[in-house]
Amino acid sequence: MPPVSIRPAQITDCPRMLELVQELATYERAPNEVTIEIEHFMESGFGPNPVYWAIVAEAEGQVIGFALYYVRFSTWKGRKMYLEDILVTEAWRGKGVGSLLMDELITIAREKGFKGITWQVLDWNEPAINFYKRYAAKFDREWLNVTIDTP
Amino acid sequence: MPPVSIRPAQITDCPRMLELVQELATYERAPNEVTIEIEHFMESGFGPNPVYWAIVAEAEGQVIGFALYYVRFSTWKGRKMYLEDILVTEAWRGKGVGSLLMDELITIAREKGFKGITWQVLDWNEPAINFYKRYAAKFDREWLNVTIDTP
Repeated sequence: MPPVSIRPAQITDCPRMLELVQELATYERAPNEVTIEIEHFMESGFGPNPVYWAIVAEAEGQVIGFALYYVRFSTWKGRKMYLEDILVTEAWRGKGVGSLLMDELITIAREKGFKGITWQVLDWNEPAINFYKRYAAKFDREWLNVTIDTP
Repeated sequence: MPPVSIRPAQITDCPRMLELVQELATYERAPNEVTIEIEHFMESGFGPNPVYWAIVAEAEGQVIGFALYYVRFSTWKGRKMYLEDILVTEAWRGKGVGSLLMDELITIAREKGFKGITWQVLDWNEPAINFYKRYAAKFDREWLNVTIDTP
């Protein structure tokens, strides 16, 4: 396998990250749900008041995966890392790239003093669930996601 | 009903908010899960780099409920309000206090240009689910919560 490096995302990575988001949304059976605009994506992470942070995996001069997180505040536990996305492009799956990203996330979470990492996974996404089990992840089916629009 | 007012939370509200968090955790059958320390609670919302914001409902000189949120970044939709907690102390339930909090949250979400509000509810918490239905909330059972510790 060609060498894979992990580094903090830069604003110039945003178009490629959004491409990978679209790839994952298609896999998650929601190809039309990605409606974010690239300017909003860039500004939210790299403008004057960033609301997310990201790391990318790079190989052969191309971003082949990334992980994106923000700070969650749990009123039970305190500040946690919320992992919004971790993904690797299809051609590069099963080669350990996800583990490189995950290991770096755990390092960051420790450095920042977060009380753990939380995220969500689709209940039918077995490859992802099996991957997370390697990290002694706990799964909880008791909570429903709720959304309202605020036009 | 005595008048109820809604206002932004202040650092001095934190001890009472934490008391209400504990009350809700007990209702949610997790009385021993609240391990956050009050200093961490205060600093996270009112220190130099706040990671959450809150509004409180006040009546007869006491905080009787609150809502606490932070900024979520959805790679599909963009910046959203994530509603971590909305709660009213037991003696004051069923009197419209939750609606006052919810209406204010919607106003804030619009002012800040958030792409909607998301949160979670326990699948057996029917009173809460029925309350959210009044806001045309959409419920999604397909996602599991995942957590790892990062000691």
